[in-house]
Amino acid sequence: MSPLPTFADVQAAARRLDGITIRTPLLENERVNARLGGRLLVKAECLQRTGSFKLRGAYNFLAAMTAEDRAKGVVGWSSGNHAQGLAEAARLMGVKATIVMPADAPALKVANTRASGAEVILYDRVKESREEIGGEIARRTGATIVPPYDHPWILTGQGTAGLEIAEQAQERGIALDAVAAPCSGGGLATGVALGVQGLSPKTVAHAAEPAGFDDLARSLAAGKKQKNEKLSGSICDALLAPTPGDVTFPLAQKVLGPGLVVTDEEALDAMELAFREFKLVVEPGGAVALAAALTGRLPVKGRTVAVVCSGGNVDHATFERALRRAQAAPAA
Amino acid sequence: MSPLPTFADVQAAARRLDGITIRTPLLENERVNARLGGRLLVKAECLQRTGSFKLRGAYNFLAAMTAEDRAKGVVGWSSGNHAQGLAEAARLMGVKATIVMPADAPALKVANTRASGAEVILYDRVKESREEIGGEIARRTGATIVPPYDHPWILTGQGTAGLEIAEQAQERGIALDAVAAPCSGGGLATGVALGVQGLSPKTVAHAAEPAGFDDLARSLAAGKKQKNEKLSGSICDALLAPTPGDVTFPLAQKVLGPGLVVTDEEALDAMELAFREFKLVVEPGGAVALAAALTGRLPVKGRTVAVVCSGGNVDHATFERALRRAQAAPAA
Repeated sequence: MSPLPTFADVQAAARRLDGITIRTPLLENERVNARLGGRLLVKAECLQRTGSFKLRGAYNFLAAMTAEDRAKGVVGWSSGNHAQGLAEAARLMGVKATIVMPADAPALKVANTRASGAEVILYDRVKESREEIGGEIARRTGATIVPPYDHPWILTGQGTAGLEIAEQAQERGIALDAVAAPCSGGGLATGVALGVQGLSPKTVAHAAEPAGFDDLARSLAAGKKQKNEKLSGSICDALLAPTPGDVTFPLAQKVLGPGLVVTDEEALDAMELAFREFKLVVEPGGAVALAAALTGRLPVKGRTVAVVCSGGNVDHATFERALRRAQAAPAA
Repeated sequence: MSPLPTFADVQAAARRLDGITIRTPLLENERVNARLGGRLLVKAECLQRTGSFKLRGAYNFLAAMTAEDRAKGVVGWSSGNHAQGLAEAARLMGVKATIVMPADAPALKVANTRASGAEVILYDRVKESREEIGGEIARRTGATIVPPYDHPWILTGQGTAGLEIAEQAQERGIALDAVAAPCSGGGLATGVALGVQGLSPKTVAHAAEPAGFDDLARSLAAGKKQKNEKLSGSICDALLAPTPGDVTFPLAQKVLGPGLVVTDEEALDAMELAFREFKLVVEPGGAVALAAALTGRLPVKGRTVAVVCSGGNVDHATFERALRRAQAAPAA
């Protein structure tokens, strides 16, 4: 096995992303802090270009490739944020991108991916395999497959969000007790842990997952990779990877504390709070680390904790559903 | 008449606010730029502490007061963002604050103002005068009245948002053709003009107002102060000041170009776009400068334009109303 990625790899990624990605703000709210009895810092990655952190890893991957490989193009598959991040990274670098997306993906996500200049190939979720379609394109054209999370270049690119958190905390003289990030395949959570702990080695890092899709939490507890029973059925559509990655899992064992698991309703409540107190639009999967802090699964009382709100690509109807929870039960 | 405030006063305010206010991000979106045929930069002041830019002016005012005056407390009146900004500024400086608010103000705004430790005095909008109540408190206690906009310390505090815009544009090598900010009494718009033009003298600055409450636009066109016919009736509840201020109007004549006027529906459309593309929660009054850019009243085609989204303190029902406009007519 190749050696695991390190903090130096995150620093290298940060140099590649300089001037490309936004240094998203680390926000704080007095009322939320008072309610939690501690200090909660929110890394607003929903404000990142393409509406999620995914541009970080995708751009870092493309920038780390050889020019010769880049000239042959890239291929990826995703129904969501990775598609948009990869398409935009390719546009910025002048690389041809082909994205394999399910034919029933939201029209807006397909349109946004095409708007970045990517070629979108639609497939039938039931009858076809996106891996086969993508693999065939790679073989035929020489294009490089850009995976959504399980690669050192991807996860260290995502880790630049963690490096920024540590820098932003340092600038304000804040010592972080813990950091948490949403987790699907583990690229963001392990990357953020590397990035934060490089500057702040005592900060405990956690991955947050939706209930029923807590493969990483169970894998960490068991000491070996576990699978989710279901492939769909959570409102957190960005967090449904079936099992931790071959790169991300051994790294997670090294850099992450116990996993945090929240329900869909708790994610919706966190979206409502992000709307009301932080003025941020966060998608369900992007809100699970915030939800862990608000519910006490990640204790904030007497501590200083940072959470990543990782994306804001949410449709109107789902956002209205989150808003209405406040009317049912007004929060403190 | 006292001399008008200058860029140096904005720089002094920036030193007072260092470490207190957030340097909110200047966001940009590829799709929006492509649609407008130019470059649109969004200053996200809805992410500012207290959910609007108002903390800037209020804190600058308190920090510029003598310690002796501060010890006697401050008093202000507002049903909205100025109340929260002033209450929080007073809390941060350990100053006693009394805020006169209408008895029918939204419960959440009253609660938020009290949560900052301010004493809230409720009055009857129909039978009582908030100016009289506030004035009586000032006379009795020696407290200083902190006006919402018509004072050099207030407007130069708000102007730090403009200084940041100019700095953030410079850092990215961007030359700004124009900047626009929402306008009620003119404190933000004139302050932003001062702050931007101090670093970028050729940038044209504009104030944006809701239709029917365009007193500044008409005053600038007429060369003397005009009044609005109505005192209420726009969804832009933060932008209903009846006439320009005695400090802000002569300054506006010097630093602002022609006024921009948008309808309530255009403000709602801008809120929907801010949700969908920028992942920001913007209140109706906070969205009017963005609306001016999106409707072409402030031309973006072939130019680089910055707009301030000045606040995000919007109730759930109004936000849902904005979201639903997209379902009626999906935007490009």
